[in-house]
Amino acid sequence: MHAPIELADIAADVVARIRDRAPRVHCITNSVAQQYTANMLLAAGAVPSMTISPDEIDAFVAGADALLVNLGTFDRERQSAVESAVATAISKGLPWLIDPVFIDRSPARAEFARGLMARHPSVVRLNQAEFAALSSHKADGEAVARFAQTYDTVVALTGDVDMVSDGRRGIAIANGDPLMGLVTAMGCASAAFVCAALAVEPDTWLATLAATAAFGVAGELAAQRAQGPGSFALAIIDALHGLDRAALRARVKAS
Amino acid sequence: MHAPIELADIAADVVARIRDRAPRVHCITNSVAQQYTANMLLAAGAVPSMTISPDEIDAFVAGADALLVNLGTFDRERQSAVESAVATAISKGLPWLIDPVFIDRSPARAEFARGLMARHPSVVRLNQAEFAALSSHKADGEAVARFAQTYDTVVALTGDVDMVSDGRRGIAIANGDPLMGLVTAMGCASAAFVCAALAVEPDTWLATLAATAAFGVAGELAAQRAQGPGSFALAIIDALHGLDRAALRARVKAS
Amino acid sequence: MHAPIELADIAADVVARIRDRAPRVHCITNSVAQQYTANMLLAAGAVPSMTISPDEIDAFVAGADALLVNLGTFDRERQSAVESAVATAISKGLPWLIDPVFIDRSPARAEFARGLMARHPSVVRLNQAEFAALSSHKADGEAVARFAQTYDTVVALTGDVDMVSDGRRGIAIANGDPLMGLVTAMGCASAAFVCAALAVEPDTWLATLAATAAFGVAGELAAQRAQGPGSFALAIIDALHGLDRAALRARVKAS
Repeated sequence: MHAPIELADIAADVVARIRDRAPRVHCITNSVAQQYTANMLLAAGAVPSMTISPDEIDAFVAGADALLVNLGTFDRERQSAVESAVATAISKGLPWLIDPVFIDRSPARAEFARGLMARHPSVVRLNQAEFAALSSHKADGEAVARFAQTYDTVVALTGDVDMVSDGRRGIAIANGDPLMGLVTAMGCASAAFVCAALAVEPDTWLATLAATAAFGVAGELAAQRAQGPGSFALAIIDALHGLDRAALRARVKAS
Repeated sequence: MHAPIELADIAADVVARIRDRAPRVHCITNSVAQQYTANMLLAAGAVPSMTISPDEIDAFVAGADALLVNLGTFDRERQSAVESAVATAISKGLPWLIDPVFIDRSPARAEFARGLMARHPSVVRLNQAEFAALSSHKADGEAVARFAQTYDTVVALTGDVDMVSDGRRGIAIANGDPLMGLVTAMGCASAAFVCAALAVEPDTWLATLAATAAFGVAGELAAQRAQGPGSFALAIIDALHGLDRAALRARVKAS
Repeated sequence: MHAPIELADIAADVVARIRDRAPRVHCITNSVAQQYTANMLLAAGAVPSMTISPDEIDAFVAGADALLVNLGTFDRERQSAVESAVATAISKGLPWLIDPVFIDRSPARAEFARGLMARHPSVVRLNQAEFAALSSHKADGEAVARFAQTYDTVVALTGDVDMVSDGRRGIAIANGDPLMGLVTAMGCASAAFVCAALAVEPDTWLATLAATAAFGVAGELAAQRAQGPGSFALAIIDALHGLDRAALRARVKAS
């Protein structure tokens, strides 16, 4: 579909637009991930907000350009914040993304996630085990495409190779580094960066692809400088902040 | 009022006293900011505590040397913790600081913050938008001085240049680095450092000035070593830990 | 009892087994410590989980290989999560560790911690002030051994020198660096690492010793690279990730 160079240029454009427009991303996320996610968004040029207070969340979502819904902390306060925020996002026409963390290990989360899928999130980002828990199918190319069509969503399936499908179009992206798996909240931060991309690129599938490729390349650049997962966690923030077209052209691997 | 060299020496003295006396600072803060704030205080030589549990908060505040009230997480549990902690701080004569984060984006927070102002915090630290939301005036020198007098408080107005006024005395401090704006909780951590200064310097206005200048200089030193906002976030902790009189004398810019 | 070289080899074996088996450690911890603790476990090769949701916690604990109970955030939700998680751990025969943070400053926490001791945790990890609050005795060798016997537990007493006793066997470990005291959640992260060791070494006392020595050595290696407490916080994660037998043999100090 898209040659790597073409995708690299799209990714570079999306990265540049985020820096230029500073989109607001409201994040309902995991308490463990809040700080890291906020710092990743700031480094990318976006503006994070995080409140889940019932007195405030609708005002914050209404003023945002995209909404992240991460199920990594699953308490009642967050569930009710999610319901309210998603309703606001839908009524305002905002892009929104679900990251159904650990639904394979929690039936309660899986059921909640299924309820959200029925409201057609712009993107659902999940790994193979989470896909299986949500769809009751193994995560092969066909099942992913069918799932995307059924729910009118873009599926970003993460793994050694990431797959992004809107049901008609599908691309595999082979960027990233194993150290990304050794930092908590890396997936959450990556999903928040996809939200920033959704805020500046109307083609949801392209935005998701571009952000996935760019984030993976940032991980590769960071791995070159890091001495372990501790220094890597910050090096990738630096790398995303400084990411340029040349690095994307040299490194984006899509097929 | 104070020449830069004189202020640099006052700042160096305050920094040294914090290291020497290890004041306890109780922080009611933003869940996103807790870890970063605690690490900044520890690096400065202070001792942080963070509980908001109703069973404990009064005992912790009563044993502290200063209280930080940050409105960045605005849930009901924190609101009630704030009421209780402020009452304890006032009855013990402890210095306390309000950081009314995002009140310009949340009417509920703004109303709560106005209630706290009526209790005369030692310091209120806020940016231009937050000042306007709190005072209904644009943040010029005159409005800031009048606000400080009205509420018998010290206003620390943050921005490209920071302004510190107690209603009679006012100084502008031009230290810091743009990377400080790309790290979440930097303002919260800076406010916590002001609290540590309040614990060791009885002149509230001088303590606020000294801490503001010292924190800005730490930011400048960190920017020289950092490769982006990720590494900067930790470099400023290192820099505050190692900050010395020579660096302050070379860099403090006040007018 | 054990010569340093012998302990170094045991520590190296435990470190290798954690990397090999990737034990799951469920952590009920301090909101300030969650991210840092999770990153430390991931760097060591273990798999952290953190939920305290009543709908989920039993399933997570039942699927884990060890349980960490840290009292650093003491709200009602966490207290009830602890009760439930400990019951599950006991019924499954999982090792579990209590870290009774700040019980010397909070009578409510101290009382709660005493209730947990009656259920015979595998390990209790605490400093001198916390030991005194829990046992009503000064933390000398005899009192620690008697306490360990009384509660059928292993006591890991932290300080300039760490002491690990199961009531019959006791060893002092003199590894570590003062910078460890300037990073919030360092003790919590260290306790989580002990839990990972408990999951792979059935002799609770040896597991605790091995993990304590290994963590201290990682701190020493990190201090050589760090420029202050900010960079140290990540350097120790890198060091634990890369820790090898040679470094342990060269540095473990036990008596």
